[in-house]
Amino acid sequence: MSGLGPRSQTAGASGADRFSINQETVRQWSLPELVDGCAAAGVRHVGLWRGPVQEYGPARAARLVRDAGLSVSSLCRGGFLTAADPAAALADNRAAVEEAATLPTGVLVLVSGGLPPGSRDLAAARERVADALAELGPYAAERGVRLAIEPLHPMYAADRCVVSTLAQALDLAERFPAEQVGVVVDTYHLWWDDTVAEGIARAGRGGRIAAFQLADWVTPLPEGVLLGRGQLGDGCVDLRRFRELVDAAGYDGPVEAEIFNPELWARDGAAVLAETVDRYRAHVL
Amino acid sequence: MSGLGPRSQTAGASGADRFSINQETVRQWSLPELVDGCAAAGVRHVGLWRGPVQEYGPARAARLVRDAGLSVSSLCRGGFLTAADPAAALADNRAAVEEAATLPTGVLVLVSGGLPPGSRDLAAARERVADALAELGPYAAERGVRLAIEPLHPMYAADRCVVSTLAQALDLAERFPAEQVGVVVDTYHLWWDDTVAEGIARAGRGGRIAAFQLADWVTPLPEGVLLGRGQLGDGCVDLRRFRELVDAAGYDGPVEAEIFNPELWARDGAAVLAETVDRYRAHVL
Repeated sequence: MSGLGPRSQTAGASGADRFSINQETVRQWSLPELVDGCAAAGVRHVGLWRGPVQEYGPARAARLVRDAGLSVSSLCRGGFLTAADPAAALADNRAAVEEAATLPTGVLVLVSGGLPPGSRDLAAARERVADALAELGPYAAERGVRLAIEPLHPMYAADRCVVSTLAQALDLAERFPAEQVGVVVDTYHLWWDDTVAEGIARAGRGGRIAAFQLADWVTPLPEGVLLGRGQLGDGCVDLRRFRELVDAAGYDGPVEAEIFNPELWARDGAAVLAETVDRYRAHVL
Repeated sequence: MSGLGPRSQTAGASGADRFSINQETVRQWSLPELVDGCAAAGVRHVGLWRGPVQEYGPARAARLVRDAGLSVSSLCRGGFLTAADPAAALADNRAAVEEAATLPTGVLVLVSGGLPPGSRDLAAARERVADALAELGPYAAERGVRLAIEPLHPMYAADRCVVSTLAQALDLAERFPAEQVGVVVDTYHLWWDDTVAEGIARAGRGGRIAAFQLADWVTPLPEGVLLGRGQLGDGCVDLRRFRELVDAAGYDGPVEAEIFNPELWARDGAAVLAETVDRYRAHVL
């Protein structure tokens, strides 16, 4: 039997009740379809994205998930703090904080942004991120939201995220109080790094792990390298080791499967969710 | 005026005479065309690849470059030491050492190889690389050849190279005498890493910099992410900073432009070489 339905909810102690499905894994589903699908599968947590939440209406989305008994593990995503117009970026991120507070979720994932146009100065871009965190951190914390810096794989350093390693993310986060700024541990972005175990332990000691996300690494990478993430177990990431490291670091929050993959989007959403839960049991728990 | 011809050879003191063109940057050229093209442009160093050298014949290639007064800055490449059949990989790498000794060049670039089929154990794969280096290092050094471990960008960690950072490459190299095993500093692979400056300094202190290669980072990446390297100056890498770091670390060998890019291959080889030399002057020196 698939899913985390009535029978398998008794497996809570084993960690199955921590499973969260990120909306982009089943982007073929509308928000109401997602909520119904999670209820049917016994999934208790969802990670949401700003676009569909804005389209549905944040307050209406909040009622929808609350009525279904779901919690929102994270909102993706704010960030792009290195943009040419810092004031506009800050305004957009304050709006993202409001949306997170409305849902509510305590975690706003931030993808920092790449190099500003024409720049070759990664260190300066990272300082722009720090400047923006100083502005946004108190604003978010006052609303019960923590900014979660997500280090993205180094292949995105130029155009999406100048924060490429967990150590860099922690160097940034640790300049601020832990209730304001945390980090995202995402297996897809960090699996290759031989220093990641010490980074996770450091993040745990500081109470900095705001979110834990899963995707597998498969090759060849597609053009643009955005939509090539693998279903759990299809690739070469030792997902269970990551889960054990994050557990050992004291993180006990949701474990979110976030897989951008057009092959999953072309299938029936319920089948994809059931498969992802099965893979989670087989490769993560 | 382009090139490093008679007039500009006087610029030797400024470092222009260290410029080397890697054969794959102008792969539209045969080996004799390459040698003639370098002579015409005043380029004194070439980086060669095993395929075209084997096809032409290593001894014949050696005469060709010697008669033209060229030096061979490196031979690409040995490696793939994590392969399913370690004995075959070692035999192939011994042949690569022989070819390097014949040319001659003192530098055999090694790309370590990715994860063995079905494996998720990066640490074990890196140990297989170390085991192979222990076999190959003395064999190479006896023939005047140094093995140069090339850390490849982390986007290749699964399928091409489990050595992803300069720190990892140095951790491996430093297990062996410096005359046996060095490292390659390649801007394309290392530009994103905020610890690269300390890595280059460490490599310099240990006498480990065996080669310095240049390519720029441009996006979007193509499918498979192999052939998307940018002409010098077209991307976001601070190439001059890398050259200064490598210089400060005491490296005074050739500086090799190695750019895999089908747009360059579609053009006239002499025009590409002249452009690359101009870009080297403008963005590296």
